[in-house]
Amino acid sequence: MTSPDPTRPNLAAHIERGLRDLRDLVALQSVSAQGRHLPETAAFVTRLLEAEGFTVRAYPGEVAPVLVAEAGEGPRTLLIYNHYDVQPEDPVALWESPPFELTERDGRLYGRGASDDKGELASRLAAVRAVRERNGGRLPLRVRWLIEGEEEVGSPSLERFVAEHAEELRADGCWWEFGSIDPGGRPVLFLGLKGVMCVELRCRVAASDLHSSLGAVIDNPLYRLARAVASLRDDGGRVTLPGFHDDVREPSEADRTAIARIPGDGQAVRDTYGVTRPLATGPAYHKRLNLAPVVNVNGWGGGYGGEGSKTVLPAHGFVKLDFRLVQEQDPARVLGLLRAHLDAQGLEDVEIVELEAHQQPARVDAAHPFVRACVAAAWEAHGAEPVVQPSSGGSGPMHPFREVLGVACVAAGIGNVGGRVHAPNENIVREHFEKGVAFGVALLERLARGSSS
Amino acid sequence: MTSPDPTRPNLAAHIERGLRDLRDLVALQSVSAQGRHLPETAAFVTRLLEAEGFTVRAYPGEVAPVLVAEAGEGPRTLLIYNHYDVQPEDPVALWESPPFELTERDGRLYGRGASDDKGELASRLAAVRAVRERNGGRLPLRVRWLIEGEEEVGSPSLERFVAEHAEELRADGCWWEFGSIDPGGRPVLFLGLKGVMCVELRCRVAASDLHSSLGAVIDNPLYRLARAVASLRDDGGRVTLPGFHDDVREPSEADRTAIARIPGDGQAVRDTYGVTRPLATGPAYHKRLNLAPVVNVNGWGGGYGGEGSKTVLPAHGFVKLDFRLVQEQDPARVLGLLRAHLDAQGLEDVEIVELEAHQQPARVDAAHPFVRACVAAAWEAHGAEPVVQPSSGGSGPMHPFREVLGVACVAAGIGNVGGRVHAPNENIVREHFEKGVAFGVALLERLARGSSS
Repeated sequence: MTSPDPTRPNLAAHIERGLRDLRDLVALQSVSAQGRHLPETAAFVTRLLEAEGFTVRAYPGEVAPVLVAEAGEGPRTLLIYNHYDVQPEDPVALWESPPFELTERDGRLYGRGASDDKGELASRLAAVRAVRERNGGRLPLRVRWLIEGEEEVGSPSLERFVAEHAEELRADGCWWEFGSIDPGGRPVLFLGLKGVMCVELRCRVAASDLHSSLGAVIDNPLYRLARAVASLRDDGGRVTLPGFHDDVREPSEADRTAIARIPGDGQAVRDTYGVTRPLATGPAYHKRLNLAPVVNVNGWGGGYGGEGSKTVLPAHGFVKLDFRLVQEQDPARVLGLLRAHLDAQGLEDVEIVELEAHQQPARVDAAHPFVRACVAAAWEAHGAEPVVQPSSGGSGPMHPFREVLGVACVAAGIGNVGGRVHAPNENIVREHFEKGVAFGVALLERLARGSSS
Repeated sequence: MTSPDPTRPNLAAHIERGLRDLRDLVALQSVSAQGRHLPETAAFVTRLLEAEGFTVRAYPGEVAPVLVAEAGEGPRTLLIYNHYDVQPEDPVALWESPPFELTERDGRLYGRGASDDKGELASRLAAVRAVRERNGGRLPLRVRWLIEGEEEVGSPSLERFVAEHAEELRADGCWWEFGSIDPGGRPVLFLGLKGVMCVELRCRVAASDLHSSLGAVIDNPLYRLARAVASLRDDGGRVTLPGFHDDVREPSEADRTAIARIPGDGQAVRDTYGVTRPLATGPAYHKRLNLAPVVNVNGWGGGYGGEGSKTVLPAHGFVKLDFRLVQEQDPARVLGLLRAHLDAQGLEDVEIVELEAHQQPARVDAAHPFVRACVAAAWEAHGAEPVVQPSSGGSGPMHPFREVLGVACVAAGIGNVGGRVHAPNENIVREHFEKGVAFGVALLERLARGSSS
């Protein structure tokens, strides 16, 4: 590890220019769920990259163009992954400033995509500019940059794209989108993502709703679904689906050490959200959040949901579930286990409907050299010890990068706990943008030097 | 039992007049849930009764006047119970003729309240008229008639009213509202009603919804509710709440015989509603429908219920339940058992909210003399063997009549399986109205003679 660098380069001009890029990017309403302004935004990003010497290729995606840019030369290659699409701005009335106008208040920059993911894109581009300037106009390493416009709709093109374009994307490490700075100013790096499988369980007992007096002689679909849900986990949150844990890989010594060093035990989350029923506190908190596979009930419906009572026997009902998976669990195998379990429970009539494409878990060991390079660069840029999370509790399309390209992925970004990602008043802290540029400079120059720590 | 009477009285003129009364009653939009036209309808019913020599007293109810009418003299007293309020007509667009205009099509009379309960009120009044005419202008028995305007909103005034007016209401038997004619033309009599207790279970784990990645470390309210629901019954539909069955009274020999004589095994219901998961067929069908206490899940909500998936950890959720109870189960005791059971299951945080007033179960033994009189009158009027159901699967405010007044209640009415009660295109079969008048004449004259069979 290095201590904070007193000879830190002066990045002020690059930061100002990066914030102007961010303002222009936020103004483009690239809402992928609604197909808004996606080719325009792809074209704008292309022009920004070309101005820095990148060769940019645009490929058709299912929803929006996929961009692959390349610049620089050297013994090392860094792959960067970002996206130029954003979540819808609804509900607009809750925004305190227009969602597509980057607005600064009290040290924060507000706007849709300010954090997720245009702030990261702009700060990384500013870092590339600074490194070129500091190296006589050339990049001392090869940078490959994959920027998609479909991340907020589940990256439907990405897995196949990565497989088909593996040669264009090979690298020594991948700087993944997202990552954050914690309230104490420590950068938080994530070394992986959980997999996810989203399903809906459905049960129907009749063609139409019935008077509940008939519940004496006709089965109840919500009871059957409740029994299915109750059979999937225990009160401690451990999944009880038979065979579910067979493929779970034990964490390495480096992973366990990293988890033990994560500060706090979730009290801030519990305070922020008024949590009354934690499943894990103390040392178990980060262990479960990073490494425990879980099943979540996301919602349910069926029968009467209004005020007061209605003595109805519902004809049908549904439950939405997500399974968050860890290495080496395979969503397709878990789906098969779920079907077999329901059948074994006498719940053959409970239908399983897959709601979206599976995502495989993916993660890199904390001892990997690219992880060490990122940790060292973060320490240098932030002047604080990085927090290393072996995995985010969330999910994303990291698996094809890790498995097809064989590349280590580390998420290091400029989010903050009050960043309201996906919600009204999305924001970043201006100082975090500045630190993000510094981190990019440190990481690129460190990789160019061939130094991992 | 008697065979059909070949000297049946000519009731044609009374039937026509009764149908005119029904038309006038249907035209009054006495929707108690919306407080529409209740005093006007009470006043109209009062005038109809006074025209037949009744003394009518109107008492204030919580929502609408309660009417108590009395006429006639003799050694026997018959109490009749009806209501003049109706369900809302929504959704109006689904009616094939205006809901408040009695309209005849293909032998059926359509209109809101045509069956529930204005058709019964009008047919009973026509029977009283006929008996008066056939007895020289006097009623040869005392008829007491309780007609409320709050039945469709749960009869909030009735229990106290019956207790406070017991002397005005005492009788040798009570002719209860509702009852039907089956598709084979056999009259169906009900000797009781199940009790009902409606509750909502609620669970909350946080102040606001969270990203489901936090499901690794924060409990899920829908899982907890599912576990509560799954613990309340088994797959055969038997309630598994500890202590629940302690007070269930074994059926008498007469009840068992009556149940064994009920035709069919529910196949018509299963065909009509496309039922795919019956809980009981064959001999078990009527036994469960009449005498089994059950728990129903009426509906549930919480989290995301829209299209596709949303990886949310809901902050809270709810489940609506009704418990259908049989003699001598007490709703208040069952409520206590439910709380104790949830606590014992570690579900102390699952809140129980009572949704409406409890209703106690009530029923009279099939061997009671008043039951025998009703059966004999039904046989005489319909020319077919009555079907005796020891209890409806449904619930209603019969308990105060049975327990406070000590009066046997028998439901004998003119509904039909396609009658769409509470729904658009509510209807009765015209011939059933005619048979209903004949039944009333037979019952009143049989009681006046002091003959029960």
